[in-house]
Amino acid sequence: MSILVVGSVAFDTITTPAGKVNRILGGSASYFSLGASFFGPVNLVAVVGEDFPEEYINLFKEKAVDIRGLEIVKGKTFHWEGEYGVDFGDPQTRATDLNVFADFNPQIPREYRGSEYVFLANIDPDLQDYVLSQVEKPKLIACDTMNHWITGKRQSLLKLLKKVDIFLLNGSEAKQLTGEANLIEAGRQILNLGPKVVVVKKGEHGVLLFSDEGIFTAPAYSLEAVCDPTGAGDTFAGGFLGYLAKADEFNPAVLRKAVVCGSVMATFAVEDFSLRRLASITWDDIQERIAAYEQMTRF
Amino acid sequence: MSILVVGSVAFDTITTPAGKVNRILGGSASYFSLGASFFGPVNLVAVVGEDFPEEYINLFKEKAVDIRGLEIVKGKTFHWEGEYGVDFGDPQTRATDLNVFADFNPQIPREYRGSEYVFLANIDPDLQDYVLSQVEKPKLIACDTMNHWITGKRQSLLKLLKKVDIFLLNGSEAKQLTGEANLIEAGRQILNLGPKVVVVKKGEHGVLLFSDEGIFTAPAYSLEAVCDPTGAGDTFAGGFLGYLAKADEFNPAVLRKAVVCGSVMATFAVEDFSLRRLASITWDDIQERIAAYEQMTRF
Repeated sequence: MSILVVGSVAFDTITTPAGKVNRILGGSASYFSLGASFFGPVNLVAVVGEDFPEEYINLFKEKAVDIRGLEIVKGKTFHWEGEYGVDFGDPQTRATDLNVFADFNPQIPREYRGSEYVFLANIDPDLQDYVLSQVEKPKLIACDTMNHWITGKRQSLLKLLKKVDIFLLNGSEAKQLTGEANLIEAGRQILNLGPKVVVVKKGEHGVLLFSDEGIFTAPAYSLEAVCDPTGAGDTFAGGFLGYLAKADEFNPAVLRKAVVCGSVMATFAVEDFSLRRLASITWDDIQERIAAYEQMTRF
Repeated sequence: MSILVVGSVAFDTITTPAGKVNRILGGSASYFSLGASFFGPVNLVAVVGEDFPEEYINLFKEKAVDIRGLEIVKGKTFHWEGEYGVDFGDPQTRATDLNVFADFNPQIPREYRGSEYVFLANIDPDLQDYVLSQVEKPKLIACDTMNHWITGKRQSLLKLLKKVDIFLLNGSEAKQLTGEANLIEAGRQILNLGPKVVVVKKGEHGVLLFSDEGIFTAPAYSLEAVCDPTGAGDTFAGGFLGYLAKADEFNPAVLRKAVVCGSVMATFAVEDFSLRRLASITWDDIQERIAAYEQMTRF
């Protein structure tokens, strides 16, 4: 089953305790696409400037990411610069140059409109809603968001949440959205806002999945060598949705395995800068790491 | 198999978002004893003042905690006062009145010396070592510590770690002890300091267990209604050691189940102030919660 993703494709300049990189490939839709591409076809919708290199276009093509929806417009590609501290926690943003992303008005190509799985990466909830108005009859709609929209576009976000099946967000965002300090209580409250499933991402502390079936709590894969946490959440979403689309089933057992799959995909994102590691892994690498995850969580 | 525990029995004055309590029963050895008492006999060694109420003595007796090692001396019982913020994270200490605990010099009663399982709760590592000099030939020795000793008595602590089988500590303490920001790397390094098993407690984020078998990562039981986190770590240790002593086996599968058991016991500690909830639960409550934990972690 094909997955439509709408989000950002960007240049990242990133400093972490492991080093610094300049203007390398980043963006929510990039990480999502590569994470999901191992499980089936991905239809990418995003916008870049004329400075976007052929090399990155080719990377998407190699990974069977359909880029007919990647608009190349006059101007410069979105650029983000951030710096992580010694604990690899929330980064300090040093620069956000929206450039062509400022006028992003996602147009879904005719060929994508029948996509059965839809992932609305973190963009303005009004644009996320506009994307939904263009797709035909998806089996499953998932979306992400960020603190900026929770405060700045709360009503739009709440309206959107009535239309999505799965809502993914960070722990701090879940607390912010609900005003609840307890994450379990926050997750339960968000379920009442509309989504059938809520996925709270806790970074190195794992993931909580809320549904009417109850709570599934999955620890993170224990990783020694973190290089760059950027894109971990979107790569999680890619593995998670990718697994669901491949299974093409929607029940508690499949959802739990999808969480494990997403958690494992995210570990590849953080082992190197940008999408380097994700670009080089094989299906066997993924299976091996899923087995290792099972080994470190079974009792 | 009987477990010897040496640590503090104290009065706690605690403020949390859920309320405030004055001079109620607390202390590492109290929480440990009640947590472990569900699994087998516990031999308690601690010191209290003449102000220690009969009511608390009776609680220990009811729970089959042997208190022949609970010394009652002239003076006042150790009193700690702390306040938790809205996120129930690390508390602010408002007062620490060591009182009779300042001169604690643990004497192990003859009847306890053959204890096969030993838990050295968080006290001066020199005193922990002194306890070990008094026990005969325990099958298993576990210890805890705190930031105060990691900085103030580092050499004594490192010497002690050569003698213990299991070392339990918090995530922040593991980072402090090793100077490592990555918890997985920190845990591995601590294994090299002597213990066969290292248990890193992450509070609401669960537990990491390190051994030569590899890593076991266990999420916390998802709890909505936290009242008071005080004693969670010691109650975890009580359930963990209690399970091991009851199984009287020491292999990877048993260790993992002991972690689950400890995690579940800790949830009872935090659901009410002091040892109230721990004092009222039954074996069935524990089994039911272990089943719920399995339900929320299986995939």
